[in-house]
Amino acid sequence: MTEMAGYEREWTVRFSDTDPFGIAHYPRIVDALHETSDMFMEELGFPFWEISQEHGFGLPLVEMNFEFENPVEAGDEVTIELTPDPGTRSVRFEYEARCDGDVAFSGHEQRVCAHHGGGGSMELPEELRAAFEQYAED
Amino acid sequence: MTEMAGYEREWTVRFSDTDPFGIAHYPRIVDALHETSDMFMEELGFPFWEISQEHGFGLPLVEMNFEFENPVEAGDEVTIELTPDPGTRSVRFEYEARCDGDVAFSGHEQRVCAHHGGGGSMELPEELRAAFEQYAED
Amino acid sequence: MTEMAGYEREWTVRFSDTDPFGIAHYPRIVDALHETSDMFMEELGFPFWEISQEHGFGLPLVEMNFEFENPVEAGDEVTIELTPDPGTRSVRFEYEARCDGDVAFSGHEQRVCAHHGGGGSMELPEELRAAFEQYAED
Amino acid sequence: MTEMAGYEREWTVRFSDTDPFGIAHYPRIVDALHETSDMFMEELGFPFWEISQEHGFGLPLVEMNFEFENPVEAGDEVTIELTPDPGTRSVRFEYEARCDGDVAFSGHEQRVCAHHGGGGSMELPEELRAAFEQYAED
Repeated sequence: MTEMAGYEREWTVRFSDTDPFGIAHYPRIVDALHETSDMFMEELGFPFWEISQEHGFGLPLVEMNFEFENPVEAGDEVTIELTPDPGTRSVRFEYEARCDGDVAFSGHEQRVCAHHGGGGSMELPEELRAAFEQYAED
Repeated sequence: MTEMAGYEREWTVRFSDTDPFGIAHYPRIVDALHETSDMFMEELGFPFWEISQEHGFGLPLVEMNFEFENPVEAGDEVTIELTPDPGTRSVRFEYEARCDGDVAFSGHEQRVCAHHGGGGSMELPEELRAAFEQYAED
Repeated sequence: MTEMAGYEREWTVRFSDTDPFGIAHYPRIVDALHETSDMFMEELGFPFWEISQEHGFGLPLVEMNFEFENPVEAGDEVTIELTPDPGTRSVRFEYEARCDGDVAFSGHEQRVCAHHGGGGSMELPEELRAAFEQYAED
Repeated sequence: MTEMAGYEREWTVRFSDTDPFGIAHYPRIVDALHETSDMFMEELGFPFWEISQEHGFGLPLVEMNFEFENPVEAGDEVTIELTPDPGTRSVRFEYEARCDGDVAFSGHEQRVCAHHGGGGSMELPEELRAAFEQYAED
């Protein structure tokens, strides 16, 4: 039986995201990717704005790697899927964005689990790991 | 009988919008306001990305005036209401943003209706005026 | 004798700031205005990132009001002048941006002097007032 | 004899770039990277805003890969070095950003040389290749 995996959100490319060729500027795509990570963590019940204050840790980015396969234009409805791949002391967020059935851009963010205030890495809290696994691929 | 006026959207303040005090940076609020104008024009059936190409005009901004009454924080759900006030050759977009019942920020954008390509002002097309009036206050 | 007043910086409009008509998106102009306020406070010796931590106050924005008179394009060299107008418990930053001799955009930000942490307004510290006055108009 | 390679610019992290921990948001670092590519192309005499209009080609991004080694804070003076590595029909921009002697972030953008208007890849124009080689490593 196939299990659905991943978290999905729709991103509408806005006029204010676009360049003289009518396609989205790359930094605006990065804004949409980061917004997606923020929406995902909120969906999980571990929003970025709470984990440091209430749980004493963060998930700072240590690497990002993206490929841009097809440009997107103002008005495009882009489905951005985020699939978490949790490790022991880190998590990888895999992204794939599709528009009209084609991949527009894809890649990943590597994030470490770190004590709040620069105190070094730590294991992912068990509840957060369990939440990631609900959205992970088998 | 009271008529509902205005277009509303919900804006969730994201961690990536916030400053060292935990409140939204002003330029990120401006991003949210512009996104709201873009969503509204799409809702009307006159998206910014179509009017110049298909109808030969634009609505460039000539003035913006905003007051910031209460700060907003990551995770806040902000209701941004946009009420258009169409003139002959221009339109004013009035904004009011509320969070937990209080006004967070409010103000307006003044936009002129201009021929595409810098050709001077023109009257609002009748269909667009009619669309604005559906959302305008009496 | 006329004294020169105001703080000036050059802003080069970038390709990544521009829209399908080749002109700067309004939110990117707002980014440039805010960057200018940040550069000015650093120039004065009261950078935004120090005043709260070392002096216990901030200058949150309570109003912004800008007019956009002429569009700017990628590659344009824009001179943004900021002239402070200090009050007792507030300061107004007046902006005028010129490109090739014409005003591109102008307006002001009204900022209050407030105790760090939401503790209400306070008088501008004397040293900061003196610093503003060096750049103020007579 | 050692030849200096690479193009350098200074980026001052602004208050408006920073997050609740006082460090730069990742999307704001990406803005600074893209601004650097824009400044570099202008320095070469092939600004992004001219090459499509006057030379009929562009350098769209097809991949970005960055590592974030050390956070940067408001007020930090970051030296961003861009070293181009031209191929036949593409160019890689290698970046290394240093602050107080340590690497803050580094990585690359892969860009293809493409006919304006989506017409497929083409060889780098000879003059542009020569310009890149002046900044390339041996």
